[in-house]
Amino acid sequence: MKKTTSETRLYRAEMNEKILNSGFNDFKKFFALDNKAYIDGALPAKTKELMGLVASMVLRCNDCIFYHIDRSIQEGATKEELLETFNIALIVGGSIVIPHLRYAFEMMERVFEEGESLSSGSSSGSSSSFSGEN
Amino acid sequence: MKKTTSETRLYRAEMNEKILNSGFNDFKKFFALDNKAYIDGALPAKTKELMGLVASMVLRCNDCIFYHIDRSIQEGATKEELLETFNIALIVGGSIVIPHLRYAFEMMERVFEEGESLSSGSSSGSSSSFSGEN
Amino acid sequence: MKKTTSETRLYRAEMNEKILNSGFNDFKKFFALDNKAYIDGALPAKTKELMGLVASMVLRCNDCIFYHIDRSIQEGATKEELLETFNIALIVGGSIVIPHLRYAFEMMERVFEEGESLSSGSSSGSSSSFSGEN
Amino acid sequence: MKKTTSETRLYRAEMNEKILNSGFNDFKKFFALDNKAYIDGALPAKTKELMGLVASMVLRCNDCIFYHIDRSIQEGATKEELLETFNIALIVGGSIVIPHLRYAFEMMERVFEEGESLSSGSSSGSSSSFSGEN
Amino acid sequence: MKKTTSETRLYRAEMNEKILNSGFNDFKKFFALDNKAYIDGALPAKTKELMGLVASMVLRCNDCIFYHIDRSIQEGATKEELLETFNIALIVGGSIVIPHLRYAFEMMERVFEEGESLSSGSSSGSSSSFSGEN
Amino acid sequence: MKKTTSETRLYRAEMNEKILNSGFNDFKKFFALDNKAYIDGALPAKTKELMGLVASMVLRCNDCIFYHIDRSIQEGATKEELLETFNIALIVGGSIVIPHLRYAFEMMERVFEEGESLSSGSSSGSSSSFSGEN
Repeated sequence: MKKTTSETRLYRAEMNEKILNSGFNDFKKFFALDNKAYIDGALPAKTKELMGLVASMVLRCNDCIFYHIDRSIQEGATKEELLETFNIALIVGGSIVIPHLRYAFEMMERVFEEGESLSSGSSSGSSSSFSGEN
Repeated sequence: MKKTTSETRLYRAEMNEKILNSGFNDFKKFFALDNKAYIDGALPAKTKELMGLVASMVLRCNDCIFYHIDRSIQEGATKEELLETFNIALIVGGSIVIPHLRYAFEMMERVFEEGESLSSGSSSGSSSSFSGEN
Repeated sequence: MKKTTSETRLYRAEMNEKILNSGFNDFKKFFALDNKAYIDGALPAKTKELMGLVASMVLRCNDCIFYHIDRSIQEGATKEELLETFNIALIVGGSIVIPHLRYAFEMMERVFEEGESLSSGSSSGSSSSFSGEN
Repeated sequence: MKKTTSETRLYRAEMNEKILNSGFNDFKKFFALDNKAYIDGALPAKTKELMGLVASMVLRCNDCIFYHIDRSIQEGATKEELLETFNIALIVGGSIVIPHLRYAFEMMERVFEEGESLSSGSSSGSSSSFSGEN
Repeated sequence: MKKTTSETRLYRAEMNEKILNSGFNDFKKFFALDNKAYIDGALPAKTKELMGLVASMVLRCNDCIFYHIDRSIQEGATKEELLETFNIALIVGGSIVIPHLRYAFEMMERVFEEGESLSSGSSSGSSSSFSGEN
Repeated sequence: MKKTTSETRLYRAEMNEKILNSGFNDFKKFFALDNKAYIDGALPAKTKELMGLVASMVLRCNDCIFYHIDRSIQEGATKEELLETFNIALIVGGSIVIPHLRYAFEMMERVFEEGESLSSGSSSGSSSSFSGEN
């Protein structure tokens, strides 16, 4: 009954589209600032996505956790790096984070599995249509 | 009237000492896990301290913010890296983070100034006695 | 798979009924204070419901968000007023609020659509049975 | 569509198993500290589980709420004790806790019903396989 | 030993100045969005400042509470409107808000007293130099 | 520069007095419900105060922490019981709770010292004038 990774991505993309086309332009400006916070700079994008992941875990937001796991893996984060990131979130945020650690662990495994089945399959690259909004 | 950086470090060190010597040993185990979460691994210590800083800012804990600014600068974080880290915290956490951004900005400047006066002065290296507890 | 607005309202009404009839009377007193906080006073009920909505969004509680959207629209809030309210919540609470902004946006659209189909249909007025508990 | 109490327990047990076998050993150390925090000491286990329940309710984590209701009932907590605990959480945490009060109330009833059907039935004692991790 | 209202305003203005002149331009963009969220629109500025106040109280940020009390009084909020706003925050956020209710109450009284001494005195209008940043 | 325990108690008592006499009567009703949540019932007052302490620590409110330490010691809580309570809060809430653990530890020591100097001195019993408001 749990949503698949693609359903999660699709719902986010569709609702973001509605919000950005609502005619209320300051939503667009905030979303643009949000995207820009994670691009390569003095710190690389991968590090920033992992920072976003820590923040999402200690604030306990599953949608945000999925998004930053997805993005950090796209930027090349390894399982070891993700586990160390999960651990920082667990230590800072305490046992209240554990249900979100379970979710993060499950999503990490799913996204890595998708990547394997993609790379062992055709060159379709569905991730190129990834919307980039939080 | 605001505490100096050394007063802040001293109070933390003294109280941690009392807590760790209280006879309640699971405090020690938690503090050990906490320290270990930030050492070099798949991710370098500097990155981990900056992650701890993002978490501290979005959870809005000034003592924790000071600690991770102090530690990340010890690990070589630059002003540019700190500003990008502050920005991620501001975007994730919103305007409620702004008072903590002001605090973080002020502490960053103070710690960099201390470093300059230390390196331009004698080889005293008071940071070598740094306790390492959160 | 997502609950309909009427399922959400029904579950809340049924569980509140059980809680209020549990024999623990201080729950009743708290619920009464809660209801009273939003009635017309120096500030009108609509403004207070929108305040409850901002609080629910920055504290990231979807059930509470739905409730205050439902109530504020009953009190006459327009789409423009709701979007400005969403924006304050987004700016105060940051990108961690975005998943709840998506939820709020979707619920706002559903409640307005219900209202249209009701007003274009018969005079049934199912909202008259609305329980009023949070 | 809501998960049964046994599905909730099963998912937690399975994911905890994966996390504890991930090769990242500090997760194990944290989980061990977590378990140890609730065993009989100067304060009895029942009291500690109820404390964990209050903390879970004010921090608004349904998975944690279910876990501590389940555990505190295993330790002998009565309905009256649970209602007084819920009330402290409601007063400390405010109306934002109400959706979690509804959840807690429903789970309390389900766990008591399970206990009754177990004790009126065979001596199977499925709770003996209870994993104990948060 | 508690900071006066003018010291609080001054520190905020000075630190915001430093942050906005740090060369990191996205801080400026966020601060601009923040300011814009509270100007007259479908909802009047006074209502929006009171919404910012509710959000600040339930998120328990004293600096933010002071700022929005100050601004909402500038926009014409009365004591009755402020007390009703405080009450919504207390009910939504619970007893954990009480220390911030004490702070809010004290600041409200101070800002009203300042206003009286200003209006009974010369026409100096020091509030015209108010910076407007959060 | 840190406030003494009696200054903290005095400020709370004075401000609560102002709030309760503000003419806004629902504050009184909420404060009454708050007080009532901690009186002897199915669970003893001491246990309830320790529950209030756990909640205050994971929500990271120093004023609330001091209040519940003060009250739980009046109700007979021992140092061992307090340390176990602190530990539950630390494990549930994580390292972000550590600054509040330091505060809690310091206040616990101060309140026990006061008690000793009182009991070794005259029979004055200043605690009998304790206001009882949160």
